[in-house]
Amino acid sequence: MRNIAIRRYGLPVPKIVDHVKRRQHIARAHQREVAEHGFSATTYARVAAAADLSVGTIQHYFVDRAELVRFSFDDLLTTRDDRVTVVVEAGEDSRRPIRAIVVEALHELLPLDETRRREHSVGQQLRAEAWREPALRDLAVQADARLHERLRVAVENGTVCGEVEPDTDPHLSATRILATAQGLADQLALSSDPASSADDVLGPVVRTVFTGRCHRYPESDE
Amino acid sequence: MRNIAIRRYGLPVPKIVDHVKRRQHIARAHQREVAEHGFSATTYARVAAAADLSVGTIQHYFVDRAELVRFSFDDLLTTRDDRVTVVVEAGEDSRRPIRAIVVEALHELLPLDETRRREHSVGQQLRAEAWREPALRDLAVQADARLHERLRVAVENGTVCGEVEPDTDPHLSATRILATAQGLADQLALSSDPASSADDVLGPVVRTVFTGRCHRYPESDE
Repeated sequence: MRNIAIRRYGLPVPKIVDHVKRRQHIARAHQREVAEHGFSATTYARVAAAADLSVGTIQHYFVDRAELVRFSFDDLLTTRDDRVTVVVEAGEDSRRPIRAIVVEALHELLPLDETRRREHSVGQQLRAEAWREPALRDLAVQADARLHERLRVAVENGTVCGEVEPDTDPHLSATRILATAQGLADQLALSSDPASSADDVLGPVVRTVFTGRCHRYPESDE
Repeated sequence: MRNIAIRRYGLPVPKIVDHVKRRQHIARAHQREVAEHGFSATTYARVAAAADLSVGTIQHYFVDRAELVRFSFDDLLTTRDDRVTVVVEAGEDSRRPIRAIVVEALHELLPLDETRRREHSVGQQLRAEAWREPALRDLAVQADARLHERLRVAVENGTVCGEVEPDTDPHLSATRILATAQGLADQLALSSDPASSADDVLGPVVRTVFTGRCHRYPESDE
């Protein structure tokens, strides 16, 4: 069987690229619909209309609704992770204190703009479904575990550079910081509170762990 | 129209008592069904079967599903509030530090036993529905506001008795403590983490606000 390819800009592009992009396009439509109409109201037909495709085409890319839901949530959570990575890498490049990088990275979990509001709403519906749908539960648990692991590593790095006391428990510290950020996200989603207070909520909790100054970058004053 | 009454133990009992109890009985059945089968799958028929009543009887007590849902969530949140009140009053009676009472009261929000696990699951589904159903949103916002108000008062009382520094912002402090407890509840609901670490997560956050000792009860050593 010969490789099926389409030509773009005169170069052969493997069909696989188109396949991945098409699945992502459908997943994004699914996310918009879940954010607008709710998880249970988001049918194949609705996703197809939102993605400007036929139901048959959706079924070609996803064998059933369960697969679409899993892929969509995974895409949403991976996109959020990718933003966190960008923040962390930029912070490390500019040699900012770990404490400041942690607070800035946690902003990516808060519904502070339209993208993050939609992400939070869909994520909250995922969590509400998770307890009776093992595949969704796994996704939610894994997404939490990735954030927790990042925070745990940040605390351990902080211990090495002097921002964190040596006897600090990295696991507990990560749980505490993540719990505060996720609880704050839920409160912001329902409230009309100014988001400007977010750092006043998060800052002191992060400081229960990051109590010192990094001796690697003594010039920093953040 | 004469007052309709039933006789119990030889005394006339106004029908209104029976009406309130019957509504609560139906609401509790609704909560069990939502916890087990999910919000959208919980139909009148399912609630009727769980409450051992006919669909017609349910419709007699609630004009529509929306009214049942509102009453049920309100009952769930009020029951939780009542437990918090019991903890707070018992703590005040035994002259414990406000900080210790706050931590113990927050336990009522954590899914640490079957009742609180069910309550948390139903509450999380309420929050997931809240953004597109104004009546449910109001209930969720009001429930948060009641907890926030209790914490705000606790911080203000702490300022008076010396457990809290005078320049502490009661509103921000309450938001921080409540966010941590609610985020921890979400994590515990998905994890197999030992609940024994709950106080190691909450304690340091409560201590960012309650930094001192109460001068009213100098004998306490909690």
